[in-house]
Amino acid sequence: MNSFGNHLRLTTFGESHGPAMGGVIDGFPAGMRVDFDNVLRELASRRPGSSPLVTGRNEPDTPEFLSGISPEGITLGTPIGFIVRNRDARSADYRSSESYYRPNHADYTYMVKYGLRDARGGGRSSARETVSRVVAGALALQWLAERGVCVSAALTRVGDVDAGSVVDEILRAPGSCATLEVPLALRKAMEERVAEARAAGDSVGGRVSCLVTGVPPGIGAPMGDKLQARLAQAMLSINAAKGFEYGIGFNAAGAYGSESADLFLPPEQKDGPLRTSTDFSGGIQGGISNGMPVVFSVAFKPTPTIMRPQPTVDTEGRRCVTQPRGRHDPCVALRAVPVVKAMAALTIADLMLGD
Amino acid sequence: MNSFGNHLRLTTFGESHGPAMGGVIDGFPAGMRVDFDNVLRELASRRPGSSPLVTGRNEPDTPEFLSGISPEGITLGTPIGFIVRNRDARSADYRSSESYYRPNHADYTYMVKYGLRDARGGGRSSARETVSRVVAGALALQWLAERGVCVSAALTRVGDVDAGSVVDEILRAPGSCATLEVPLALRKAMEERVAEARAAGDSVGGRVSCLVTGVPPGIGAPMGDKLQARLAQAMLSINAAKGFEYGIGFNAAGAYGSESADLFLPPEQKDGPLRTSTDFSGGIQGGISNGMPVVFSVAFKPTPTIMRPQPTVDTEGRRCVTQPRGRHDPCVALRAVPVVKAMAALTIADLMLGD
Amino acid sequence: MNSFGNHLRLTTFGESHGPAMGGVIDGFPAGMRVDFDNVLRELASRRPGSSPLVTGRNEPDTPEFLSGISPEGITLGTPIGFIVRNRDARSADYRSSESYYRPNHADYTYMVKYGLRDARGGGRSSARETVSRVVAGALALQWLAERGVCVSAALTRVGDVDAGSVVDEILRAPGSCATLEVPLALRKAMEERVAEARAAGDSVGGRVSCLVTGVPPGIGAPMGDKLQARLAQAMLSINAAKGFEYGIGFNAAGAYGSESADLFLPPEQKDGPLRTSTDFSGGIQGGISNGMPVVFSVAFKPTPTIMRPQPTVDTEGRRCVTQPRGRHDPCVALRAVPVVKAMAALTIADLMLGD
Amino acid sequence: MNSFGNHLRLTTFGESHGPAMGGVIDGFPAGMRVDFDNVLRELASRRPGSSPLVTGRNEPDTPEFLSGISPEGITLGTPIGFIVRNRDARSADYRSSESYYRPNHADYTYMVKYGLRDARGGGRSSARETVSRVVAGALALQWLAERGVCVSAALTRVGDVDAGSVVDEILRAPGSCATLEVPLALRKAMEERVAEARAAGDSVGGRVSCLVTGVPPGIGAPMGDKLQARLAQAMLSINAAKGFEYGIGFNAAGAYGSESADLFLPPEQKDGPLRTSTDFSGGIQGGISNGMPVVFSVAFKPTPTIMRPQPTVDTEGRRCVTQPRGRHDPCVALRAVPVVKAMAALTIADLMLGD
Repeated sequence: MNSFGNHLRLTTFGESHGPAMGGVIDGFPAGMRVDFDNVLRELASRRPGSSPLVTGRNEPDTPEFLSGISPEGITLGTPIGFIVRNRDARSADYRSSESYYRPNHADYTYMVKYGLRDARGGGRSSARETVSRVVAGALALQWLAERGVCVSAALTRVGDVDAGSVVDEILRAPGSCATLEVPLALRKAMEERVAEARAAGDSVGGRVSCLVTGVPPGIGAPMGDKLQARLAQAMLSINAAKGFEYGIGFNAAGAYGSESADLFLPPEQKDGPLRTSTDFSGGIQGGISNGMPVVFSVAFKPTPTIMRPQPTVDTEGRRCVTQPRGRHDPCVALRAVPVVKAMAALTIADLMLGD
Repeated sequence: MNSFGNHLRLTTFGESHGPAMGGVIDGFPAGMRVDFDNVLRELASRRPGSSPLVTGRNEPDTPEFLSGISPEGITLGTPIGFIVRNRDARSADYRSSESYYRPNHADYTYMVKYGLRDARGGGRSSARETVSRVVAGALALQWLAERGVCVSAALTRVGDVDAGSVVDEILRAPGSCATLEVPLALRKAMEERVAEARAAGDSVGGRVSCLVTGVPPGIGAPMGDKLQARLAQAMLSINAAKGFEYGIGFNAAGAYGSESADLFLPPEQKDGPLRTSTDFSGGIQGGISNGMPVVFSVAFKPTPTIMRPQPTVDTEGRRCVTQPRGRHDPCVALRAVPVVKAMAALTIADLMLGD
Repeated sequence: MNSFGNHLRLTTFGESHGPAMGGVIDGFPAGMRVDFDNVLRELASRRPGSSPLVTGRNEPDTPEFLSGISPEGITLGTPIGFIVRNRDARSADYRSSESYYRPNHADYTYMVKYGLRDARGGGRSSARETVSRVVAGALALQWLAERGVCVSAALTRVGDVDAGSVVDEILRAPGSCATLEVPLALRKAMEERVAEARAAGDSVGGRVSCLVTGVPPGIGAPMGDKLQARLAQAMLSINAAKGFEYGIGFNAAGAYGSESADLFLPPEQKDGPLRTSTDFSGGIQGGISNGMPVVFSVAFKPTPTIMRPQPTVDTEGRRCVTQPRGRHDPCVALRAVPVVKAMAALTIADLMLGD
Repeated sequence: MNSFGNHLRLTTFGESHGPAMGGVIDGFPAGMRVDFDNVLRELASRRPGSSPLVTGRNEPDTPEFLSGISPEGITLGTPIGFIVRNRDARSADYRSSESYYRPNHADYTYMVKYGLRDARGGGRSSARETVSRVVAGALALQWLAERGVCVSAALTRVGDVDAGSVVDEILRAPGSCATLEVPLALRKAMEERVAEARAAGDSVGGRVSCLVTGVPPGIGAPMGDKLQARLAQAMLSINAAKGFEYGIGFNAAGAYGSESADLFLPPEQKDGPLRTSTDFSGGIQGGISNGMPVVFSVAFKPTPTIMRPQPTVDTEGRRCVTQPRGRHDPCVALRAVPVVKAMAALTIADLMLGD
């Protein structure tokens, strides 16, 4: 099923070179005045062209809301249907790929699964699918913000440039940061790596980290709906994601219990919530939020399309060589930042509405 | 909800010191002759006491199947209900913890969520919950094996002993291994780390890796049901799991597209399935299996209970010190190996039965 | 949630006087060539204006398919998103009702539930919502027809004119009819009742019956997914439906076991399917189809809007009198016929695709 | 799937002549002190032997609760697992039926669906399955009662004895009754019909009606989760149910709008809830509760097993004659009364907990 969430459920549809992308947000609470500018801002930040680093494809990406919102901009409690037209669908660029399977793309698996292949630009497996998630996520982000939950995300690695210390700092001193900020020098260095990759006709991987503050304690449930399980599902549902870790993450495998315990601190006020001195737990214990910041990272592979010929196999099973044209995003992780934010917001809002 | 899966759905119940753990497996296909010995073998491998390294708690863990299987041992297609009695429930060991919140445990979050706390041994958040998953997983493993799908898992890291090269080798030469095997020397070294941690009253983290061969191409769906998204959810639903990665995993963040593409190879027979030269994709492209081995790893934190006093806070919010008694598993990752296998089997069987 | 179905899942959205109605059909199998004319025919049959008996509102109701179907008209296996614009939205007609609660409408319950009220023509609770179901149902009907499953429905009662004998006949001689046909004289009589109600500014109730032939034996599951349970849910989800019965239905309450058993007949060919002499079971035994015709009926209340003033209460809780204007369908059951077909098709296709 | 409910979800398992019936109640709120005597009372009322009218099979039916309830009897918020052992499983009585398909039973459809047949007493399709629903329903009934929601049900028809006026009275004067009570004379007459059927080796159908008072306004959702849609699904999931109607029900088909509108009354206190003068809507408008009594009826067919030989077909497709032995309930509707209550309670509690 092309859905995500149980209480706040997003269902998306759309092929990248079909008439439109779109979605239905079901279960969105009634009575919120939608900040449409914020929706556009979130969309702009995922758009190719939002940065000198990404591909030049420049679609306006203005969502049309069709239901669930009154003419005054108030959510009605009914499902919010929306579409985003595909305006700049230069599918001819992709036509050459119809006859072969592009390496690391979904061409072959879609062919096997559906018995046919919508060759128009990768169809449903295109990163363009995430536009619907960003629209829905923008509404969830606003709903969360009105409840004191703040979601921020940033690129914390590109190639060999690693800003992971930003995350470590939060784990060691969880009250220190309200949002995730990467120092300018590191951001510049990451931009350089992307520019180098682009110049070389190559692509490069990256990592996006996310900090969510203000999550109320008590959300998540003991088994498949553990908060980290649902976040992991959400993040690995994003195109090109290869891994998820929260709190101490993969470093846990090398850690000792005596050094990685988050010690409880007495409440600041009588009967107030407990805090912990550190946040190696990433804000989650036993699958349930403990009120501390939720911190996690997602690894993204290099964009599979590169501007160099690669050996592959055609639909007849014969060896051939790719002929890359079309557009080219050298670092998919860059555009994934707002998508990670959106999926985090949808997951947490879903669990706040029921679990 | 305490369930996992859409078409093959496991629902578990049970508190570690209540009368019994148990579960219901719904959607299991009719007509399979159950190998009960195999169920017991899988259970034995997660049992404390199965290795010199783990705690001495020694429960027989014999499941009683109550439905869904004929007296002749054939699955009926109806839901399979089962229970595993808790025989050796020394809850007195845990009584001292009733009055304070153990660090890195779920005591506090359960208290916040449910407004009460079942102090009997951690209740539902205990690792004992996984016994139900292993029972269900054993049936799924058998069903998969009869269809040529083989699941193997192994501990590939404990503390600073890292056997990750075993996984890398599979990614670089995916046909080389049918099962995941860690060299004896590394296994010995890992055992030593666990023994050292035990002797020091400490605990140590670890990583479990898993190899699934024979997965038919075409399973998984484009969004929340992407194969990797469902695997990630399954793995992060296991107690103490802190991260999930598949294929190239977090190394993707440092990789270049020109070096990490899995190039397609011509089919061995006309119209046969395609293979790829490498398996950095971990057997999944666009969320859908491509027929290559599915390879992934899961990080586990050190057991939160250590045999050293730790500062904490009692239920009145006053500072106090833990008084560890009870049983003690120095490395929870050890016992997680059969659980990872079980959850992988349940996930893949679920998606083979529908997505 | 505004969804229906587990394997073939329709999610609908749209308020009657908002920009558009629409839906997403997820899980629709790949490879079917869509007969768009058939979609338009089904839509035409629910449209006000399709019969001299119904209201004059005349919207073209042309769905725009946005995804999941290739330019050549072949289903892709991906979600099928579609919208139907609301062109003729004379919401001024409804404005007068903003200030009071119309009897037997959802005005009051929506107000209570959502804390606000989308006064524009009844919003989401309007019969217009069913347009999305008919679009989706038309695709399901075609998919079923290609598998030999034929769904037909007809109005079998309006007021005191009862054509129930048509259904009884099928139950007593299940092979006798391939489709449900009501004799012309009875149809004329029903039309007269509707015309009389219209002339009197009144409305009248009705009953729609449905016959599904060719359902493969073995669909449906033992509990909440019993075929009759899912059909009942589907039918009672239609606006104005007040009851559902299948096979012998409510007459069962007065029947004796010795007179109402469907006796099995030997198969026509060796190892062929069994048939039963009668079909009081309505094609379902133990919640699972037995291969005989599935037969059921749905009762619909009179349209709540009538062209006579009625006492009611305004939003301040004061007594007042309704001032009916707007459009007026004297018999909602008439327009429900294609909706019953659509929901039957979606339910049966869903269970054929998995249960 | 063998589940029912989204937020309060019951999953049942068990074959009538296997070791045990059982279930898991997931999502049950924490903190309720369970009245175990009430569970036993509800179970006793469905038990064969609870009335002189029903079959002599006399199992104690004492549920064993295995989880989700503390030793002090307080619900923990975690899943409540329970089993009810099958003690008196005289499966030899049923052995003769192994070789033929019993008319109106699920023997044939289970055979077709699952490719095998658990001949032990009808297996999963036996009315015994409802024992798990009654256990779960008893907990839901208590939870509802603590919130002022009262569920009562009664047999309102057996054969030609019809106590439907009891329901009509409530629809016409909804404040008149707090519980559904059938006059003694009619109850006696119904008992006579059952006794007559038993004496004749025959069986007779019936109808159960249900009244739920105190349902908070605003539960239910616009499409598949309409309150009446979920009630219909719940009721038609009960063995032998053939129809469902709520409020005016099938009489709607013959009614006029001018005569069947529920007119709103001014609130008794300022800003208090509205009431309606009549309750033809059965407490539901637009799929959402309006605070008036929820009233519905369910038709049940005569028990399919009768103590008379019936022609049928054996598993080889040859004509033969049934040889009825075993136990015999002449009127399944009698035992369905507590099951209707249980399913109504589960449905309404589920929607009160989320929709």
